[in-house]
Amino acid sequence: MDKNSLSANFKIGFLGAGQLARMSGLQAFRYGIQVAVFSDRDENEPVQFMTPHSTTGSYDSVDDLAHFAKECNVLTLENEFIDSTILKKAQEQSGTSIFPSPSSFALIENKLIEKQTFEDAGIPVTPYALIKDEEELETFGEEHGWPYLLKSSKGGYDGYGNETVANMDEAIIAYENLGGNSGRDIVAEAFVDFTHELAVQVARNETGHVVYPCCETVQKNHICVGVKSPAPVAESIQQKAQELAIKATETIDGKGIFAYEFFLTKDGNLLLNESAPRPHNSGHYTIEGCVTSQFENHVRAVMGLPLGSTELQAPAVAMINLLGTDERSAQVDSALEALNESDGHLHIYGKLDSRVGRKMGHFTLLGDDGEAIYTRAQKVTKEIRI
Amino acid sequence: MDKNSLSANFKIGFLGAGQLARMSGLQAFRYGIQVAVFSDRDENEPVQFMTPHSTTGSYDSVDDLAHFAKECNVLTLENEFIDSTILKKAQEQSGTSIFPSPSSFALIENKLIEKQTFEDAGIPVTPYALIKDEEELETFGEEHGWPYLLKSSKGGYDGYGNETVANMDEAIIAYENLGGNSGRDIVAEAFVDFTHELAVQVARNETGHVVYPCCETVQKNHICVGVKSPAPVAESIQQKAQELAIKATETIDGKGIFAYEFFLTKDGNLLLNESAPRPHNSGHYTIEGCVTSQFENHVRAVMGLPLGSTELQAPAVAMINLLGTDERSAQVDSALEALNESDGHLHIYGKLDSRVGRKMGHFTLLGDDGEAIYTRAQKVTKEIRI
Repeated sequence: MDKNSLSANFKIGFLGAGQLARMSGLQAFRYGIQVAVFSDRDENEPVQFMTPHSTTGSYDSVDDLAHFAKECNVLTLENEFIDSTILKKAQEQSGTSIFPSPSSFALIENKLIEKQTFEDAGIPVTPYALIKDEEELETFGEEHGWPYLLKSSKGGYDGYGNETVANMDEAIIAYENLGGNSGRDIVAEAFVDFTHELAVQVARNETGHVVYPCCETVQKNHICVGVKSPAPVAESIQQKAQELAIKATETIDGKGIFAYEFFLTKDGNLLLNESAPRPHNSGHYTIEGCVTSQFENHVRAVMGLPLGSTELQAPAVAMINLLGTDERSAQVDSALEALNESDGHLHIYGKLDSRVGRKMGHFTLLGDDGEAIYTRAQKVTKEIRI
Repeated sequence: MDKNSLSANFKIGFLGAGQLARMSGLQAFRYGIQVAVFSDRDENEPVQFMTPHSTTGSYDSVDDLAHFAKECNVLTLENEFIDSTILKKAQEQSGTSIFPSPSSFALIENKLIEKQTFEDAGIPVTPYALIKDEEELETFGEEHGWPYLLKSSKGGYDGYGNETVANMDEAIIAYENLGGNSGRDIVAEAFVDFTHELAVQVARNETGHVVYPCCETVQKNHICVGVKSPAPVAESIQQKAQELAIKATETIDGKGIFAYEFFLTKDGNLLLNESAPRPHNSGHYTIEGCVTSQFENHVRAVMGLPLGSTELQAPAVAMINLLGTDERSAQVDSALEALNESDGHLHIYGKLDSRVGRKMGHFTLLGDDGEAIYTRAQKVTKEIRI
């Protein structure tokens, strides 16, 4: 498309129909363009409620994906579930560009290749090894200490596909559970003694790149429960994380929005833990917290438009994830305190069914003092049943 | 509905499918609820691109409206095109509440009744009279001076349904054009010698009310071309306008979002010029300019939720309307300068066809100095072809 023009006939296609595509789609609507969605589920997904252009198919079918792609002007990902080789074929067959490109995605879709890619570029990563048998499970423990992590090299998210193992008995069971004996590549990762988990988002396209503030992600059972931005760490650390995030994006020639999660070790080093080629939970706070949200810059990036300012809108921003509290038809109860909070912003994703721990929405609070607003945001969301 | 709960099955229905419903709908999505739209046009309206729940029917048909209403949990207006008696019947027939209520709307849908209602409540309005014949055209001119305005008592917007008349010849033609000889009520309004046109939005429901800052609307040929908030007038004037706006909303027992336009006369008095029972062009700047936008508070108001803070996010906010520059398939050209502006926010409404003067989008800029950012916003949007 002409870089200077936005057309009402332009259609951005999302591969995936969850909250990340939904929040990106809301931004696409703000630019007057149309939203189409491809999902492997029939209906009732968050994006399916907000467009008449909904397609169902298999994430494994090049034909399904190419057929959808032909209806769209550009495609983008909201998850890592589709193989890069399938994306590449769908792109070739349809002639519709996919961002991030299948070749960028190929460098990070597999945890082993991802770590090698970034390590080769001089970006420190957590110590890791491909595990091929029981002996290597033992060797890794001896070298890096117990407990350590075992991860399926593909498809993990929010703690799924990850297991912490404290000894050989656990390691053997986890290896089996993760599919190690059925041909899946399993990666072992050393347990890192960290003080903070940090995250940085980068948007990039041919017009340049922008980097978001370095934030802290607060995790519980491998799920992000909250975010503090800027992260309560030294500015030099924040800058270093931003530099590494930019370098990582350049390394894979990423076009779109990318998120990087880092460990800040007790001795003050940064280790890249995970990367995501899409909007990320750690960046939800940017909707109100930054001049241009990660979703807006995601849409700008894939459309080839210039990227917007990532400046913070307040000295500090806190985000609390609203995780499902009940197994039921989704509904939000006892949100009055959150709705009444000045400078607070409630987001609900429109999922029809709630499950305990499922990401159902989030709440963002802007203020002057990072710790105080994070505590306050926790307090006003504490009673919410969702 | 339970005031404390938001359900993913909840459906808000918009009567009208233009940009006002679109921007409100985007907010509804943020709360995880569903959006349905009723329009008298088949397709390609801004809201029709963002929901699978689209109904076409006649604004004059109680059955059509009631049928749609039954699919929704609550209905709201985005224009003044449907008669309040029809809305009332549709509400009764469907059992679905409409906000603003048909009885509130009945007090302002007709310019004559509107002026009487507010005048009776002690709110100063522009001098006016119902015109029944040629003699009264003459009398009004003699009493209030030429030129003056003739307005159709119902259905006018953006200058349509309004004519300025400088003498009896023009008055007779305008009276005929506006339908005065075909049974339409025609209202004459004195020309007011004003220094500023001001506007204030008020959101109100059973939980209370909130009032937005008093802004200035810059008009050209009866169409709003821009907004400055806060208005560059004395704080006492701003407060007075806010007080009158709240009083007006209470007078009609309004539930939803309302906008009021005032003239600030040369001798420092405020006269209520027009009211609108819906989100209003004068409040588009609130999307980024205030903590809670007029659209968010509109959705909150009709859902019975507590209303959010209307505090400004910056010392000054400017909004420029992007009016159609060409007759063509809608597309935005030369918007790079606007997209590159830090703290600038581009909104395009997704209309498929552009017409000269049609409201196609808007641009909002935040900053410290009101006049400087308004000039700046004009400058960076000047080259846009849309």
